[in-house]
Amino acid sequence: MTSLKNVFENEIKSLHELKRVYNFGAGPGMLPTSVLLEAQKELLNWNNKGISILELGHRTKDFQEILQNLDVSFRKLMQIPDNYKIIFLGNAARSQFSMVPLNLLNKRDEAGYIVSGIWSKLALQEAQKVKSAYCLASSESEDFKSLPKINLSDLRNNTKYIYYTPNETINGICFKEVPQTNKNIPIVADLTSCMLAKPIDIPSYGLIFSGAQKNISGSGLSIIIIRDDLLEYEIEDVIPTIMDYRVHVASNSLYATPPVFNCYLALKTLKWVEECGGVEKIHEHNLAKAKKIYDYIDSSNGYYCKVDRDFRSEINVCFYLNKPEFEEKFILDAQNIGLYALKGHTRVGGIRASLYNAVPLEAVEKLITFMHDFAKENAL
Amino acid sequence: MTSLKNVFENEIKSLHELKRVYNFGAGPGMLPTSVLLEAQKELLNWNNKGISILELGHRTKDFQEILQNLDVSFRKLMQIPDNYKIIFLGNAARSQFSMVPLNLLNKRDEAGYIVSGIWSKLALQEAQKVKSAYCLASSESEDFKSLPKINLSDLRNNTKYIYYTPNETINGICFKEVPQTNKNIPIVADLTSCMLAKPIDIPSYGLIFSGAQKNISGSGLSIIIIRDDLLEYEIEDVIPTIMDYRVHVASNSLYATPPVFNCYLALKTLKWVEECGGVEKIHEHNLAKAKKIYDYIDSSNGYYCKVDRDFRSEINVCFYLNKPEFEEKFILDAQNIGLYALKGHTRVGGIRASLYNAVPLEAVEKLITFMHDFAKENAL
Repeated sequence: MTSLKNVFENEIKSLHELKRVYNFGAGPGMLPTSVLLEAQKELLNWNNKGISILELGHRTKDFQEILQNLDVSFRKLMQIPDNYKIIFLGNAARSQFSMVPLNLLNKRDEAGYIVSGIWSKLALQEAQKVKSAYCLASSESEDFKSLPKINLSDLRNNTKYIYYTPNETINGICFKEVPQTNKNIPIVADLTSCMLAKPIDIPSYGLIFSGAQKNISGSGLSIIIIRDDLLEYEIEDVIPTIMDYRVHVASNSLYATPPVFNCYLALKTLKWVEECGGVEKIHEHNLAKAKKIYDYIDSSNGYYCKVDRDFRSEINVCFYLNKPEFEEKFILDAQNIGLYALKGHTRVGGIRASLYNAVPLEAVEKLITFMHDFAKENAL
Repeated sequence: MTSLKNVFENEIKSLHELKRVYNFGAGPGMLPTSVLLEAQKELLNWNNKGISILELGHRTKDFQEILQNLDVSFRKLMQIPDNYKIIFLGNAARSQFSMVPLNLLNKRDEAGYIVSGIWSKLALQEAQKVKSAYCLASSESEDFKSLPKINLSDLRNNTKYIYYTPNETINGICFKEVPQTNKNIPIVADLTSCMLAKPIDIPSYGLIFSGAQKNISGSGLSIIIIRDDLLEYEIEDVIPTIMDYRVHVASNSLYATPPVFNCYLALKTLKWVEECGGVEKIHEHNLAKAKKIYDYIDSSNGYYCKVDRDFRSEINVCFYLNKPEFEEKFILDAQNIGLYALKGHTRVGGIRASLYNAVPLEAVEKLITFMHDFAKENAL
């Protein structure tokens, strides 16, 4: 068995050989070089079948096998119990903003949303549009610098689920633990940026979902993991069939043509995570990357984070320059030495370094050296 | 400028060199080898940026450029007038079965569906589920062997659009022309299997859509082309935002993370179609392929088509063996000599040879030789 250390030594070696940059993009994000190399090698002739994986029919036995292996691999890596179903959907994760309320709420039901950043805010708005939802707690008035305090007395009686976003990619804020709420109410979580990046205690959740374009595959695939009792709740309103979890579960994710290439690539990435030693090992590595850069920022005179220390994202490190007029130069200079996609989201500005699974520690070290030099040169 | 002849000479050469098979799969279908080779070459380092296209952020200038070029290229190849908008959606085409009625019908409206095969039948069922729709004409009672006869007096007064499926991939039946109906009622067409395979008279339509996995790209991308006045119709019911055409148009297909790789690949395929001389040249080639195989079937003693001659699909050639017990052997023997994925859809059985754009005439010739030998050997 290989170890994370070996895996990343090879990653860095290939990266340099192939003149690949350190990609800090927030998603689609950096993928393991070894996974891309494998995909490249077999792109014209997959499995010696004489076809490209892009040309593989989704109703073939070969593809069924990919889907099944993907299911097995997710279950193993994330320790998903049998009473949870996994759906692989050709769609952006944002589709879940409507699908969750459409599938879980009837007319008399409501959902309570914890708003800790822009994505959870948008999710709440969509739930309010298609069904009935309320804000259970929000830190918006504090500009999302800290996590909202949840007052359990605010929970309404007809609350069918509680929704939150464990990691907010735009604001760089995250929950270290599952919020303590009423244990009888299922928790729904948007894990788009942290699925496979840290251990998730599946039994704490009723439903979790993730887009693939951060730690799993290319964009255009969503993974939905749902506790089977939630599928049994009878919804009175009509749901467009393509949005109905029950249909996707019953058809083994084949109700509509799935994104074949993305599923194939996801399977390779999961194998890579396993080679790294699994999600816990990956998480240790991710924590080390995050600690290094936050430590540097806190000790520097030129940079600062807006988010309170206790709640800073391990995955999307958002920070600002003391002299904001140098932001653009910072991003360009960084890019020129192979530190790619450091621009913060337009809604919040600043710098964002996303440290997805495939980003090596070396990338962070190089970024810190650059930040140090840049601060000095430009007297930040 | 290269010609179709040259393009396919190169295609066949690469095909043999790379030991690729002739892929008759119905979708995901065969893609041009030259397109796959390009994608393979740059998979680890796209555009000399040091990243894979799979890792390119969808909010970057680089991706905006891909989307814009894709728009320009579709407009040019398909002669799409300015008053039509193009949406690139990360989703299966089947999502349109709900999106079309949700976006075009209010409570008092209905839609008339022409049912000429399994896909149009499923589209009608979904429209009836989410809104109000009726069967304007159907050839189901004739087992979809011919096209339904449309009686204009069956058109209901409140008909907001007329829907049909120009080519039915499962049944192998197609319309050679746009059905003559009431000119004031927009026509909606599911062009999943024939977009870019034949010239489409865009002004005849209010809305057309296509999945990408036949002639355009990998699975997981849909293209929707909609006349702009249809976007102005105010819908009273709530539409899940991810299903709202207006939102996708207003956000330039960036409401949710789009399938970056699929868009990139589509752009390459469109360039390839242009190299072939455009859609008309491609169509001539497609017609030649279809004629060759239908001529052989009609002259053979071992094989037959169920669909009436006038309505046979140019794209999905569905046929049967006189001795159905040899079907499985036929499919396996064919596969063993590099004629891949000839199994008919499970709903109808038999053999299906899909002749998408990238399938060379040589593939059809090889298939005919095989069919001839097989018929002889097995005394069909």
